[in-house]
Amino acid sequence: MTEFGFIDSIVRLFGNMPTNGFEGIGDDCAVLPIGGGESLVFTADLVVEDIHFLRRAASAYEVGRKSLAVNLSDVAAMGVRPIATILSVALPEDAAEEWAGEFMRGYHSMSEEYGVALIGGDTTRSAGGITINVTAIGRGPSGQIKRRSAGQVGDIIFVGDFLGASGAGLRDILQGHTDTPQAVIHRNPTPQIHEGAWLGARSEVHAMMDISDGIASDLRHILDTSHVGAEVDIDRIPVAAGATLKDAACGGEDYKLLFSVAADHAGQLAEDFLLRFHHPIHPIGRITASASLQWLRNAAPIKLDWKGFTHY
Amino acid sequence: MTEFGFIDSIVRLFGNMPTNGFEGIGDDCAVLPIGGGESLVFTADLVVEDIHFLRRAASAYEVGRKSLAVNLSDVAAMGVRPIATILSVALPEDAAEEWAGEFMRGYHSMSEEYGVALIGGDTTRSAGGITINVTAIGRGPSGQIKRRSAGQVGDIIFVGDFLGASGAGLRDILQGHTDTPQAVIHRNPTPQIHEGAWLGARSEVHAMMDISDGIASDLRHILDTSHVGAEVDIDRIPVAAGATLKDAACGGEDYKLLFSVAADHAGQLAEDFLLRFHHPIHPIGRITASASLQWLRNAAPIKLDWKGFTHY
Repeated sequence: MTEFGFIDSIVRLFGNMPTNGFEGIGDDCAVLPIGGGESLVFTADLVVEDIHFLRRAASAYEVGRKSLAVNLSDVAAMGVRPIATILSVALPEDAAEEWAGEFMRGYHSMSEEYGVALIGGDTTRSAGGITINVTAIGRGPSGQIKRRSAGQVGDIIFVGDFLGASGAGLRDILQGHTDTPQAVIHRNPTPQIHEGAWLGARSEVHAMMDISDGIASDLRHILDTSHVGAEVDIDRIPVAAGATLKDAACGGEDYKLLFSVAADHAGQLAEDFLLRFHHPIHPIGRITASASLQWLRNAAPIKLDWKGFTHY
Repeated sequence: MTEFGFIDSIVRLFGNMPTNGFEGIGDDCAVLPIGGGESLVFTADLVVEDIHFLRRAASAYEVGRKSLAVNLSDVAAMGVRPIATILSVALPEDAAEEWAGEFMRGYHSMSEEYGVALIGGDTTRSAGGITINVTAIGRGPSGQIKRRSAGQVGDIIFVGDFLGASGAGLRDILQGHTDTPQAVIHRNPTPQIHEGAWLGARSEVHAMMDISDGIASDLRHILDTSHVGAEVDIDRIPVAAGATLKDAACGGEDYKLLFSVAADHAGQLAEDFLLRFHHPIHPIGRITASASLQWLRNAAPIKLDWKGFTHY
């Protein structure tokens, strides 16, 4: 069973259950309106030794920061600010002391950077490797929350930063080159936390999500749930230094934002963003009424068999 | 480093951080007042193969139910109703199909029993054993939330049901007797979910928590945080069938409620509880102004070196 197959079976199994005020599964986070025009959002991610990281290729400090980063990125992709996390760690004997301490210092350093509280969790022994689960909670105005399903025909599609460095870095690590600049970026992603909440406050931003499996895969989630298609100009995909175009389109774990913006306001938004964050956002295409994702090169359609990155 | 040592170091590390509206660590759950006189509560527990369960001694269905039960018990201990969970599962190849399906059926069956939504989570491969993390969310009137620190001198101390069956069952399982009634109870705890919310609504109930490590250990958390002592009459500890008195006082994983009640209202509360739930609650002692936990036999002090159950 693939990850998506398992999740589909869970969605079916729980289809008849009360939602208790939560909105349905399908976005980066679940949403709970709490009154007063506000909502909370919730997400969780597992980080497993020998699946998501190798102890010999990543420091405990880096694993601590990245475990938090991937969750904060999901909250930011909803357009709101992360406020707290709940952390669970299963530790084998040989990681219970020094590794655990360094891990917590990394986790704390990123929590501090974004003002995120640690409100609870669990620690236990592990008979195998290290397993980490982070549950992140965000909070913001309900009207600010961005969903994958909100893409509209004519919207300009943007990505929030250069892409592909993380995928290139993973390739380096698997080839034994753990010290390349891209390998360092793979282990130390910088999610767009402040950018997410800022974009959330702009009503011209329609659909939003974070890029964890590459735009070739992730953009399809926006298209499918919004019942639209898209044209993406591959010459306009911003490729990070040291990465290939395919890394940028299909590499995993960039943790940058992907969002669609009303065409009339796209230019102004891009200007305002640059002024606020001192780096540009990048238009890569537009949403169409077709049902498919069409790649373009020099404005002409081309066929590409690009798929996203799969962990599982 | 012990579990408590690691948690203490985390509390120190995060001591200077913003709380973002959450109340401090130290109860079964973290609490977030959300306005309108309501609060949410949050808790998380890891369930790890070969630490918390053996695949040969517990069915996947049972592990699914118990993973949820231990978290719902923490929510109930705060005096409010569980509304949702977030589930993360790391699965080795040989558990990805049949085991995972049975696990989810068990998880679903208990979710359904208590009307608890599943709002998100993560699934991934594991290079070692099975690891499960459940984050549970409860919701209720802020004034109804029960804290460990609310014990008052003179309160009667109650337990919500007979104790010790789970501890006796664990001993049976470790001796290879996986089919005794107590072993079945160990794998299938029945947390006091409805009881917790009902007791939450009673203002004469002061401190409350759930018994996961035995009253000899757990009662001390109430005493320490309430800055009080207690006398406990060991003849009044309700010992479950097949368990010893020591199992009942020191055995782990009973997941029954432990709470203190204003003495003037204790009799009426016990009557009302019996009428509502058709089984009694059990007074075992009272809170004193001393700083220690004093065991009594036939109303006379006795010295006992009883400690709680330790997983880690």
